[in-house]
Amino acid sequence: MGGDHGPSVTLPACKAFLAAHPQAQLILVGSADALAVCVDWQRVRVVTASEVVEMDDSIEVALRRKKDSSMRIAINQVKADARGVSAAQACVSAGNTGALMAVSRYVLKTLEGIDRPAIAAVMPSERPGGTTVLDLGANIDCTAEHLLQFAVMGTALVAAVEGLENPSVGLLNIGEEAIKGSEVIKQAGELLRQASSDGHINFYGNVEGNDIFKATTDIVVCDGFVGNVALKTAEGLASMLSKFIKQEFTRNVFTKMAAVVAMPVLNHFKARVDHRRYNGAALLGLRGLVFKSHGSADAFAFEQALNRAFDAARNGLLERVHDRILETLQAMPTSPNEKQDDSAESSKVVSLLGIARTA
Amino acid sequence: MGGDHGPSVTLPACKAFLAAHPQAQLILVGSADALAVCVDWQRVRVVTASEVVEMDDSIEVALRRKKDSSMRIAINQVKADARGVSAAQACVSAGNTGALMAVSRYVLKTLEGIDRPAIAAVMPSERPGGTTVLDLGANIDCTAEHLLQFAVMGTALVAAVEGLENPSVGLLNIGEEAIKGSEVIKQAGELLRQASSDGHINFYGNVEGNDIFKATTDIVVCDGFVGNVALKTAEGLASMLSKFIKQEFTRNVFTKMAAVVAMPVLNHFKARVDHRRYNGAALLGLRGLVFKSHGSADAFAFEQALNRAFDAARNGLLERVHDRILETLQAMPTSPNEKQDDSAESSKVVSLLGIARTA
Repeated sequence: MGGDHGPSVTLPACKAFLAAHPQAQLILVGSADALAVCVDWQRVRVVTASEVVEMDDSIEVALRRKKDSSMRIAINQVKADARGVSAAQACVSAGNTGALMAVSRYVLKTLEGIDRPAIAAVMPSERPGGTTVLDLGANIDCTAEHLLQFAVMGTALVAAVEGLENPSVGLLNIGEEAIKGSEVIKQAGELLRQASSDGHINFYGNVEGNDIFKATTDIVVCDGFVGNVALKTAEGLASMLSKFIKQEFTRNVFTKMAAVVAMPVLNHFKARVDHRRYNGAALLGLRGLVFKSHGSADAFAFEQALNRAFDAARNGLLERVHDRILETLQAMPTSPNEKQDDSAESSKVVSLLGIARTA
Repeated sequence: MGGDHGPSVTLPACKAFLAAHPQAQLILVGSADALAVCVDWQRVRVVTASEVVEMDDSIEVALRRKKDSSMRIAINQVKADARGVSAAQACVSAGNTGALMAVSRYVLKTLEGIDRPAIAAVMPSERPGGTTVLDLGANIDCTAEHLLQFAVMGTALVAAVEGLENPSVGLLNIGEEAIKGSEVIKQAGELLRQASSDGHINFYGNVEGNDIFKATTDIVVCDGFVGNVALKTAEGLASMLSKFIKQEFTRNVFTKMAAVVAMPVLNHFKARVDHRRYNGAALLGLRGLVFKSHGSADAFAFEQALNRAFDAARNGLLERVHDRILETLQAMPTSPNEKQDDSAESSKVVSLLGIARTA
């Protein structure tokens, strides 16, 4: 139901996704009216919801008042029951990001060893698969330990989705030298170096904003404020440049003729940096997989978010994050997360890992 | 002497600048060898220096060991003597940024009411003059009061250089709503709103990364970590897109033919977003005007930095920053800067404002 276009975009994307993945099954959650057209689709189960979280609803409204929202019910599908079984392996939404994070966190809870979930997305770069950046806005003030957790979760994500076992991690900073940056960043650098020398991650060192696009590392880690500014700055610049190019090529009859000649080249260029190909941000660190599509996604873009969620589920992202974070924290005797390590929590995680594979 | 190219770029730029501004005079500071060619130039005085701060020198080296560096001597030219007279009204360098800030701060000191100098630069945007952003890396951890000072200094800068008396200021955040962001950002929002309702600045509210390019406001204020990441992210994306466009147009004989046809349009586009036109970052908040050219600047770009410094000096940037910051702080009885308001400091500032105009 979410995003700027709702089912007019999400349903065609689902249809294309099902056609491309004969082994996949979908649970579609939304209003009965909107989903009436898909009751007889193959490999689809329809679950109706009486409410919808709107794009401008506050987190409060989404969390406390709309308890029968399509968003809430969709997230419920990935929640493991007492036997560790969930109806779905991953949830994809194009809805309100703040509400999606809050409801996911409330319904699913965080994985053991994770203080705060993070939002990870791929930005187009000189690297064919793009560069994975996190956090992109879920956490404003982060400690060094949070940044370490982001690095571990990002590593698990790239390993699962791209099949790259030892992706490199950069710490976003304002200079390459280890002495640069705030105290938190310097401490995070030390934790990341330690985790790297223990073999839990592959830490490259500090990177700067331009390294996201140079793809100096596979993953770039930062706090959510900085990540969000970087993402929106890049989106803003790309959109301005695209507008200027259009204006220049439509200036007069000569430039319009030039546009016709240049069109195939420009289209090739456009496809190469098409952010739609990278649609589908992962909400990492939860006891269930949730992916967020851009609200403005078209059917092609939304299908990519479905693909990303499918790959993550198929390649055991949840278990990878869980295993890696525990390994890393166990190697750090001074970890502030030890307090969370009570046996009730542990057994819950273990049972979660027994999720039946439905797809 | 500074920058990637040294006098081979800066001297031709100086020559072009002098030709364009018959009323301007230059003091060129550098090694005797490098400046031998300009001893007989009109309206030029040569001051020799025995040392040069290298691009990779630490701040320590620049500050403590190279006391006869061209950078140090150039900054000395804008320092007011006991009578409030300085040899030059502004200093321009393409050298090591960290060293330039440290030496400027050490030699010139900050203006009354300013805790920390900031680096302000213009980023190309949908606004014809570009959008002024500060701080771009001088201050990593900022308080709300620092962000207010940046807003006031940025206002004075745009007023002086663009002749726009009431430029709008946006606070860089991760959402437009006043409740978004960290505690520091929320407090800064309150201070900025207060200063705006008192008529000292023209505060628009929160802006996001993309608003820099949409030119939602004339000025965007942020801490130096976030500003530096935003700047380098934009530079990195621009450089990747430019590389990709070149690759696409040189792919084969057909794309090369398309390039010939599209060239005039692409050149027009390129000129429109040419960052060289905006070269020349201001080090604001010091008792003297210092401008930083990009290290990679060519002669055209370096000349723009000279122009920017010239306009700032001519339009009384120093006095504007001084007056605005005092007005703003006087209207805020709870300001933490009151402690600096001792009479010795005040008389120093007043004498500074009596600088003889040499140009």
